[in-house]
Amino acid sequence: MKEIQNVDIIRVKGDILQREEDIVIVEYPFTLFIEDKEIITLLCSPSSLEYLALGFLYSEGFIDSLEDITKINIDKEKGICNIKLYNVNKLRDNLRGKRTITSGCGKGTLFYNVLDSFKSQKVENILPIEIEKIKLLVREFNRKSELFKDTGGVHSCALCNYDEILIFEEDIGRHNALDKVFGRALAENINTLDKIIFTSGRISSEILIKAAKRQVPIIVSRSAPTSLSIELGEELGISLIGFARGEKMNIYTNKKGGGFL
Amino acid sequence: MKEIQNVDIIRVKGDILQREEDIVIVEYPFTLFIEDKEIITLLCSPSSLEYLALGFLYSEGFIDSLEDITKINIDKEKGICNIKLYNVNKLRDNLRGKRTITSGCGKGTLFYNVLDSFKSQKVENILPIEIEKIKLLVREFNRKSELFKDTGGVHSCALCNYDEILIFEEDIGRHNALDKVFGRALAENINTLDKIIFTSGRISSEILIKAAKRQVPIIVSRSAPTSLSIELGEELGISLIGFARGEKMNIYTNKKGGGFL
Repeated sequence: MKEIQNVDIIRVKGDILQREEDIVIVEYPFTLFIEDKEIITLLCSPSSLEYLALGFLYSEGFIDSLEDITKINIDKEKGICNIKLYNVNKLRDNLRGKRTITSGCGKGTLFYNVLDSFKSQKVENILPIEIEKIKLLVREFNRKSELFKDTGGVHSCALCNYDEILIFEEDIGRHNALDKVFGRALAENINTLDKIIFTSGRISSEILIKAAKRQVPIIVSRSAPTSLSIELGEELGISLIGFARGEKMNIYTNKKGGGFL
Repeated sequence: MKEIQNVDIIRVKGDILQREEDIVIVEYPFTLFIEDKEIITLLCSPSSLEYLALGFLYSEGFIDSLEDITKINIDKEKGICNIKLYNVNKLRDNLRGKRTITSGCGKGTLFYNVLDSFKSQKVENILPIEIEKIKLLVREFNRKSELFKDTGGVHSCALCNYDEILIFEEDIGRHNALDKVFGRALAENINTLDKIIFTSGRISSEILIKAAKRQVPIIVSRSAPTSLSIELGEELGISLIGFARGEKMNIYTNKKGGGFL
């Protein structure tokens, strides 16, 4: 399934109007059913759909590991993913929660009176890393993202160790891109405790909390963090770098006795 | 309440690390309660909160007009909004729907088997407008957005007529910015049938559907549309311009017998 699509447009340049062919990014509705119950339709890029499903199930607390899943079946034509779980009671618990309304960009994945429970998920592990290493990884990350910068409107996300990018994913949504990365880490049994997350997107509280759930000690973004993500970074013990571009970057939070050297 | 916040950062430029003060955008958790039931926490910029609440209630189908609301009470300190409705049965109907999980950027506000019901909301009204007028409005929109481009990571949204910007709102989320605009249009009883929406953000299907609900005939964006938003634009009869910057823009859909001249 293609991630981009040709469309006919009228291009306006000053006084000149011209019919042309252009490329737009595909937005693909992908509906998840758990035990035949419709859970959500993710509006996403149609790549790495199994990783997206896995990452979403983990992020939203439906599974704690791959072992929780009996069967996962994707129909790409119909945009449907059927998931069977070992522990169906857990599904009921999860759906009984306070989450009632789906929402778009900048809206809450979780409710903030739930936030306190996350504070127990403090990231204790420390990952000392030299700034020079980060710069090398930023360059590698930007190089990989270049194709997608051209088509416009795609977010990249990567999981790295000290030396290289281990997982790289894209999506029209920055949350989806992160879920794809974590879903693939689950599928390939890659520990995220001693890794770094790179993202092209803004770091909001939701992104930070997803990383905390996977105990990732460092997040690096090409964009800005929000006030809340900085506060949470301090509290949860996540080192946070923003505006990482070439030789420049801003360090917003840095763990004592570890983090960046 | 401030929309930006000072933070201490370490700025890295090449080999130089320096402690500095920097500005980040505030992410504010704003929780809506309808009839004492917690509905959602919007992660937003703390401005125009009443408009945001109104626009959200309308977008998500909790109200059809201002008359549906008995009382709306905002506690800025606590980040809480209490809403009382005339018709409480409607709340129950709405919550009984299929929407079960909240979600972040690029994820679905609505489920795509619900999409068919939107197709009846075809936008019949036509708004013939000259491209030159659009260019003038683009310049005005960009001028207004400039302050926020500096702080990074804020979206702008505006409602315009042929000649000027009537409503201008910003938020860290492009959905919130649009909800603020529509909420204010509701509050001030401004008809949206013969208006244009300007947005700095990507036009996804969700943005398009929100505009269709308010019967807006034209959407102009500084960014890219997705494949699905173009398809829906054709079906729902919304003219769609993307990458509108200065003298350039791309026309993706244009209504026959009307739209752009």
